Amino acid sequence: MADYRVQLRDMSFLLYEVFQAEKMWAQSPMLAEQIDVQTADAILQECAKIGEQVIAPIAREGDEVGVSWHNGEVSTAPGYKDAWSTYAEGGWVGLGGDPDFGGMGMPKMLTALQEEIVCGADMSFSLYPGLTAGAALSLAKHGSEQLKQQYLPNMYSGEWAGSMCLTEAHSGTDLGMIRTKAVANTNGSYNVSGGKIFITGGEQDLSDNIIHLVLAKLPDAPAGSAGISLFLVPKYKVNTDGSLGDKNGVSCGSIEHKMGIHASATCVMNFDEAEGYLVGELNKGLACMFTMMNFERIGVGIQGLSCGVRSYQNALEYAQDRIQGRSLTGTKSPKLAADSIMVHGDVRRMLLTMKALNEGNRALALYISKQLDLSTYAEGEAQQKGTKLTALMTPLAKAFFTDIGLECAIAGQQVLGGHGYIREWGQEQLVRDARITQIYEGTNGVQAMDLIGRKLAANKGEYMKIFAEEINEFIAANQTAEMAEFITPLTQAAADFEKLTITILTAAVKNPDELGSAACDYLHVFGYTALAYMWAKMAKASLVKAPDDDFYQAKLLTARFYFARILPRRLSLSASASSGAEHLFNINDQLF
Amino acid sequence: MADYRVQLRDMSFLLYEVFQAEKMWAQSPMLAEQIDVQTADAILQECAKIGEQVIAPIAREGDEVGVSWHNGEVSTAPGYKDAWSTYAEGGWVGLGGDPDFGGMGMPKMLTALQEEIVCGADMSFSLYPGLTAGAALSLAKHGSEQLKQQYLPNMYSGEWAGSMCLTEAHSGTDLGMIRTKAVANTNGSYNVSGGKIFITGGEQDLSDNIIHLVLAKLPDAPAGSAGISLFLVPKYKVNTDGSLGDKNGVSCGSIEHKMGIHASATCVMNFDEAEGYLVGELNKGLACMFTMMNFERIGVGIQGLSCGVRSYQNALEYAQDRIQGRSLTGTKSPKLAADSIMVHGDVRRMLLTMKALNEGNRALALYISKQLDLSTYAEGEAQQKGTKLTALMTPLAKAFFTDIGLECAIAGQQVLGGHGYIREWGQEQLVRDARITQIYEGTNGVQAMDLIGRKLAANKGEYMKIFAEEINEFIAANQTAEMAEFITPLTQAAADFEKLTITILTAAVKNPDELGSAACDYLHVFGYTALAYMWAKMAKASLVKAPDDDFYQAKLLTARFYFARILPRRLSLSASASSGAEHLFNINDQLF
Repeated sequence: MADYRVQLRDMSFLLYEVFQAEKMWAQSPMLAEQIDVQTADAILQECAKIGEQVIAPIAREGDEVGVSWHNGEVSTAPGYKDAWSTYAEGGWVGLGGDPDFGGMGMPKMLTALQEEIVCGADMSFSLYPGLTAGAALSLAKHGSEQLKQQYLPNMYSGEWAGSMCLTEAHSGTDLGMIRTKAVANTNGSYNVSGGKIFITGGEQDLSDNIIHLVLAKLPDAPAGSAGISLFLVPKYKVNTDGSLGDKNGVSCGSIEHKMGIHASATCVMNFDEAEGYLVGELNKGLACMFTMMNFERIGVGIQGLSCGVRSYQNALEYAQDRIQGRSLTGTKSPKLAADSIMVHGDVRRMLLTMKALNEGNRALALYISKQLDLSTYAEGEAQQKGTKLTALMTPLAKAFFTDIGLECAIAGQQVLGGHGYIREWGQEQLVRDARITQIYEGTNGVQAMDLIGRKLAANKGEYMKIFAEEINEFIAANQTAEMAEFITPLTQAAADFEKLTITILTAAVKNPDELGSAACDYLHVFGYTALAYMWAKMAKASLVKAPDDDFYQAKLLTARFYFARILPRRLSLSASASSGAEHLFNINDQLF
Repeated sequence: MADYRVQLRDMSFLLYEVFQAEKMWAQSPMLAEQIDVQTADAILQECAKIGEQVIAPIAREGDEVGVSWHNGEVSTAPGYKDAWSTYAEGGWVGLGGDPDFGGMGMPKMLTALQEEIVCGADMSFSLYPGLTAGAALSLAKHGSEQLKQQYLPNMYSGEWAGSMCLTEAHSGTDLGMIRTKAVANTNGSYNVSGGKIFITGGEQDLSDNIIHLVLAKLPDAPAGSAGISLFLVPKYKVNTDGSLGDKNGVSCGSIEHKMGIHASATCVMNFDEAEGYLVGELNKGLACMFTMMNFERIGVGIQGLSCGVRSYQNALEYAQDRIQGRSLTGTKSPKLAADSIMVHGDVRRMLLTMKALNEGNRALALYISKQLDLSTYAEGEAQQKGTKLTALMTPLAKAFFTDIGLECAIAGQQVLGGHGYIREWGQEQLVRDARITQIYEGTNGVQAMDLIGRKLAANKGEYMKIFAEEINEFIAANQTAEMAEFITPLTQAAADFEKLTITILTAAVKNPDELGSAACDYLHVFGYTALAYMWAKMAKASLVKAPDDDFYQAKLLTARFYFARILPRRLSLSASASSGAEHLFNINDQLF
């Protein structure tokens, strides 16, 4: 496996040359205090060092050895404790955390890149701090002042970690059916009882305490999701002086044996009259949890990106070294027994597909992160626009980046041939790891329904119109001869996408099943159209400098590749998405 | 995991109602002796029983325990020896073998279905008899009478097994670079020395002897692939009386640890002055090996089909049982806490995509098998047509069926959600197993190059024209109102595909790299167009009977689904395939 090399140059290009992050930072009084270009660059460089040198080296053994369970205790894989300590001591768990409670207050544009780096180094490892940061975010937003003071500083410092306890054996996508119960105690706390499955980091030996955010229902709660409340349930109770007290009624019954992310502990958790504390309002727990879920959904999307980036690096190194066969246009390396496989069009197709998709997705991840930062730090219209676009694009990030992540992991494996299938090269691990990203945090089908239902149909396309207007403004502002090769296909793609949106929304008025039938294909048309916008923006930022600089030259050529070979995917997807729900529903269940 | 249920009804539909296999059998004097409908049905039913009851039950433990290596010996997983014995004793290894040497002489249309059944039961297991049958085929076609008498009967009976030794560490796709040497002995045998990797079944404890077909070069052989010869190298030498003699200079240095097919022994094989016997002519070994490779390539394609079929069955059973959420058009199961996930359009999309692709691919597998049977058993024009179409479609079968196999395995896993990712449900094994089918026997990129180079450009599209003419004849013969919904899109797809073929062949005259650049997408357009033809044929065979019979009704509805939602994939692929090689080659290697 190729050594991990964080793509810092591309990150900097996106931050400053494409998205002008520094301007947004300077405009927000809160951000201006925390961050400028120099700080951001120093953070990314330091993070890259930890990713490349501390975390990446434990990934292979982590996959081979995995986590183990014995009598309710989970042992993480070799090297994980040390890596966690180094990571936590560097303040990395709290990089995006609330500064009032010891976090570093960094914007999402930076923590998104941190996530890419850490996950690119080792996806299993990244989940422990990722869940902790997400739980802390929900707590910071919805927790009482007392809970925040008691828990956040130790979570940001990595002394304690977090988990997210939603799924039960019979209830995953449909959380309204959960059976975990919470009964009020006289002292304001609750006794939480029930079983949860698929709990990432539910038990581990990295941190002194584990702070579970648990969905449960009061005995008299309304039926369905309107009766869900959110509770903070610590593994060890916390004394008023902040020291650890008794073990709470929380135990890990077993861990799952999975296809991948072997070094991530996926736990069956049992809550047995465990003491818990309400977060947010009673019966409003799902909304509080969604703060964490939306954070994690973008994070999972970025995991897909990381798998793609790592796969590209592996495949490129292999392709450059491996000689096999001869170029169709005549021998290129006469002194060697064969040419490098870089001479073969199909190998270049696979590599450039990965490159174009990864760089496009990284741009889109930062675009979405910028919207999230605007929703947090801006005011007025910019803030509102940021909030709406974040809502619109969170399911896109989760599903599109992870679908592409698997595609890239598979393409990378294909470049390696048989060597990609044996464990020793490490590429097959990326395929196994990438695969979970399409499933957890709501399957990609659920994301597609969230997009087309809640984020599109529910507001009659208002959020999507905001995005379309932004693209149209960009198109109008770039009617130049140099940009025409990008603007012309972008204009067509954006117009076709708008038509598709109207077609589906119109059809859904008569038959709501049109939404579910179109959802997945529609999400992907959205993704490829959004990437066309990203590639046009990147091309614009590269045009002037390209003649003298390989980096910009590569950007321009990759942009051309994207428009020629990837964007046409929208054609098939649009045809499929608009073909009508009857082809799915005319066939009775017994005829399957 | 759902119990494996062999789709015998569909197999019979294809054999007799779509492809009129019984007519071909009756017309060939050789086949008429061996097979009729009754025999074929009895064979398939018996094979299904063994697949479902003997082989399928060992697959999960085979994956968990895998094969192990100790001091050069390989132990197969629990149950494999017994299953092998039962399978061999039933005569199944020699089902397609030469009757003059103890084989059962069954045509490919039947052995293709046998392959689907055995591989659907357990892909790892299927490789042992699969490689044996392939090696026997090459031997039957190219071996001397003496070699055939000495080896074939014991291979057909499964007392001995076979392997295929091509790849070396530095030489896989490009076999011209192999270093394994063969030196002539005075007694007509050769001493073979060298190392081979990725040898499936190179060592195992199932059979008394292993017959390796080994590619090697004589010291004075011409350079490159023109200097390759094929040798039969047994693990144990065979005495003139047929009994086993001394151990030959063959050893297994280690086995690979792989992503999947854990119960298949993938061996590093060392040949140390091992006694070998020439098969075919000196320096013509690659052609002899291609007899086996073409057999295995169709076989690997069918492995992809099997993974898809199994995944569909798993996903369907899960989807029917699992309740989660409510239908978009109102509650369907008011007495349950939620509706079955069958109510969700996106779940139906995944299931029907799998169903349409699997049934289409099974039809195409039988279509290609019929061509192969015609090339073997027919005469004159029918024989020639069969030979050409088999050559044309062998890379299609290998690459298209396996790419779709992985797609279906992943879709199946996605339907199962988190339960598809944990090992206990067995679905993730299918994903890991399916993944190798796209890689071994020549990666799918190599298949795409074989198709567009050797099978298309090299004969200036002659083979493809034969296929196009057949489709056009079918279109002309079915200009009816009932068939219009299938004939109209098929006509368009076939015409567009012809245009694409001409575009690429024309461009390739100026720039041969156009072939490599278009190869993979072109192969997939071919596949979807061919499936459109298959679905139109299946629709035709179903139209009259559909009103009164669920089976035919389901066929018609699935055909409609295929044309509405799958066939449009050709649009994107065609656009990408014809976008020009410059997008892949204008970017210098250092800019990747």
